[in-house]
Amino acid sequence: MIKLVLIRHGQSVWNLENKFTGWTDVDLSKNGLQEAREAGKVLKKNEYTFDIAYTSVLKRSIRTLWIVLHQMDFMWIPIYKSWRLNERHYGALQGLNKEETAKKFGEEQVHLWRRSMNERPPALKTTDIRYEASNPKYKELAKGQFPVTENLADTEKRVLEYWNETIAPSIKAGKKVIISAHGNTIRALMQYLDNISPDGIANLNIPTSVPLVYELDDNLKPLRHYYLGIDGEIPTHIPSS
Amino acid sequence: MIKLVLIRHGQSVWNLENKFTGWTDVDLSKNGLQEAREAGKVLKKNEYTFDIAYTSVLKRSIRTLWIVLHQMDFMWIPIYKSWRLNERHYGALQGLNKEETAKKFGEEQVHLWRRSMNERPPALKTTDIRYEASNPKYKELAKGQFPVTENLADTEKRVLEYWNETIAPSIKAGKKVIISAHGNTIRALMQYLDNISPDGIANLNIPTSVPLVYELDDNLKPLRHYYLGIDGEIPTHIPSS
Repeated sequence: MIKLVLIRHGQSVWNLENKFTGWTDVDLSKNGLQEAREAGKVLKKNEYTFDIAYTSVLKRSIRTLWIVLHQMDFMWIPIYKSWRLNERHYGALQGLNKEETAKKFGEEQVHLWRRSMNERPPALKTTDIRYEASNPKYKELAKGQFPVTENLADTEKRVLEYWNETIAPSIKAGKKVIISAHGNTIRALMQYLDNISPDGIANLNIPTSVPLVYELDDNLKPLRHYYLGIDGEIPTHIPSS
Repeated sequence: MIKLVLIRHGQSVWNLENKFTGWTDVDLSKNGLQEAREAGKVLKKNEYTFDIAYTSVLKRSIRTLWIVLHQMDFMWIPIYKSWRLNERHYGALQGLNKEETAKKFGEEQVHLWRRSMNERPPALKTTDIRYEASNPKYKELAKGQFPVTENLADTEKRVLEYWNETIAPSIKAGKKVIISAHGNTIRALMQYLDNISPDGIANLNIPTSVPLVYELDDNLKPLRHYYLGIDGEIPTHIPSS
């Protein structure tokens, strides 16, 4: 039986300030650093080991992973970083306060933007300073591939490209894998793995920096999943279909 | 003109305790963490950028690199870790106090063990707990390849395998490279690059966590080198032949 560990980054500075973040590269808050240390301790206490790690090119997920691996004494494993594991691109909402945005556009619209599969936030203009297509971090993206906004289905598409081409083959080759990523990249992967319905996915929130363990069969079909606490499994109600 | 940056890890707990370290995987001291942050600030202030980083599988060099890249906002670049960049293996001296060892074996012998090209410290027995051949960190090493002791020439041989097969091709492909490593791996690389004499190498000490810049021509022959401080080049007297 295969175990795959997913972890959403610890609290970021903008989680704390209640802003839409998306691809904005904000750091962990002081609390987020502590959360990451706790996650590392939880994994160590439960005797998890890893051969390889995957993360995004955003510092909040990279740093969470680094702290986890430091706590576990597994800093030496290979870490692969890909923009395909970045948070969902939040378009022109990036940097806006969530509460103010709700006041302006209505709670319902903001909930749809945040949680549904198909709603895209307003697109970023390519003249906007937040359009970072020329950042060397994104030099792998072909011209026009840098997103201006994404819905969860868009995010899922690129996450699954990376899953199918890189992560799944690595798991099938017997590697013990940890993925440090973002709320919506993890939701996207869970939607795919567990075939979660649109209603289910709309109500699925991922806590920051709590290891989420997927037990998979040899074909990488999920058998069960649970969050991990210092004393082992945490009972949970992840919608599974 | 190509710039290559080498950095020895910040002060480790055992640097502080004046112990022979070698492949023992000790962490940075509090001072070492601060040194690493300073190095990152120095590189950022001098507007260095990197495309790729290389380091050992020992946490003091990995963590130094992570802190440097965090300070520079370059956490997203690929980092490759190899045992070939590990510190020289110090054999049965690992864990011993340097001063006590000097009292026991004599200052001159210890200086030879520490600084000469050809003297090997006493070998580790394969029954010794410090013989870590079965650590998963070293699973790439073939049976019998895990060292029991090394002189600087032994270290240089494996460092140059990695240089020639991996790092040099990457530099020639136009990548801006930083190598975070150890006193003796950096001495070994400098010996090779600058063809430093045995007398020269015996007197060459590398300060912890000060960026060392090599300017190279297109064939990776050194033009000059210097340490980097917050205000730019630091005048130095590296023996160069």
